[in-house]
Amino acid sequence: MTRLIGMLIFPRLTQLDMTGPYEVLARLPDTKVELIARTLDPVTTDRGMQIVSTVTYASCPPLDIVMVPGGPGQQDLMEDEEALAFLRRQAVSAKYLTSVCTGSLVLGAAGLLKGKRATCHWAALEHLKPLGAIPVSEKVVVDGNVVTGAGVTSGIDFALSLAAILEGEAVAREIQLQIEYDPAPPFDSGSPKTAKPETLAALNAKLTALNEARREVAARVGRKLGTAL
Amino acid sequence: MTRLIGMLIFPRLTQLDMTGPYEVLARLPDTKVELIARTLDPVTTDRGMQIVSTVTYASCPPLDIVMVPGGPGQQDLMEDEEALAFLRRQAVSAKYLTSVCTGSLVLGAAGLLKGKRATCHWAALEHLKPLGAIPVSEKVVVDGNVVTGAGVTSGIDFALSLAAILEGEAVAREIQLQIEYDPAPPFDSGSPKTAKPETLAALNAKLTALNEARREVAARVGRKLGTAL
Repeated sequence: MTRLIGMLIFPRLTQLDMTGPYEVLARLPDTKVELIARTLDPVTTDRGMQIVSTVTYASCPPLDIVMVPGGPGQQDLMEDEEALAFLRRQAVSAKYLTSVCTGSLVLGAAGLLKGKRATCHWAALEHLKPLGAIPVSEKVVVDGNVVTGAGVTSGIDFALSLAAILEGEAVAREIQLQIEYDPAPPFDSGSPKTAKPETLAALNAKLTALNEARREVAARVGRKLGTAL
Repeated sequence: MTRLIGMLIFPRLTQLDMTGPYEVLARLPDTKVELIARTLDPVTTDRGMQIVSTVTYASCPPLDIVMVPGGPGQQDLMEDEEALAFLRRQAVSAKYLTSVCTGSLVLGAAGLLKGKRATCHWAALEHLKPLGAIPVSEKVVVDGNVVTGAGVTSGIDFALSLAAILEGEAVAREIQLQIEYDPAPPFDSGSPKTAKPETLAALNAKLTALNEARREVAARVGRKLGTAL
């Protein structure tokens, strides 16, 4: 039977959170990837690219794997009862609940990460806590049937790990070779641990407003879930 | 003045060839990224995802940077006179001609790589030769105003290198931190040099037909260009 993977897409999604894992997981044998949105209209991502959904919350069949990507639009999703109800409904029968980047905050907002170890984009990791999850600063975190990946490009590492869980290491290795994932970043600046202090400071300054807004949403949702202090 | 980057999209494009660089380059200051296709209808990529173009060959303004991604559909593009004419027209005024993965074969087919050092997906690198280019087995190759990246995920390394060329290293480093590009592949299987022999053999067997088709197209186009032996 065909494995069904469903990835949520929504306004102001960071497209690489989804397109990275898509490239890996759509190469699994006997697998179909659905892109799920509120409607079938093209979805506009945070930098403008428009992507077309294949099913709606209402028409999406039961999924084997649910994946929620992140991006600034994740905040609205955290209080979108229609999206949260969709995730809760799918969670009943899905084999794996997964996310990339701030998508884990959406899983958390749906009440699906209570007591679970999970990761997130480095700049938003702390907001998992009021949602009842245990934040872990790692690239890919597996806790039972919950698999989460860190920020944006981490979705490729996440997806190769998930591919190995689903189909075994040999298949994952072959996909890695297909997509020539032998990364050679020109700089060592991909983590707050390795970035220059001035790079981190400049970026943190730009992220202040977004981070404060995320903190407020996470606290509000956490109070509603009964998980926030 | 706003920098204009144009990325070609076409049927059976490998979407990550484009979406990886898009995520990096759309974050450059004062920059707009256009997605160029024959029409404004959604384009269906090789694994099914549909992406919406923003301009057509006819309506696209002069670009500062042209980027051609790859994927199995690149072969049709290599003999698509409308696409090749578009690239030649843009090449007259563009500051940089760039590609990711087998997109370099399309630049080559347009006659834009004669005598230029360039890279490509590892499995298709040899086909640059009949198009008059000098194949180089590296992640990112810069030869004057031609910047090429190797296969699929290499587009992220390519785009960070290009970002540094265009805006300086500090900006590129900040984007790298934004997208948490601190790769941690779960396996060492992203290059024919590091993959297990059985992984490489299994994949090469699957690629035989595609590779032979590519060889034929490259030879035919090369004869037309006068660059093939």
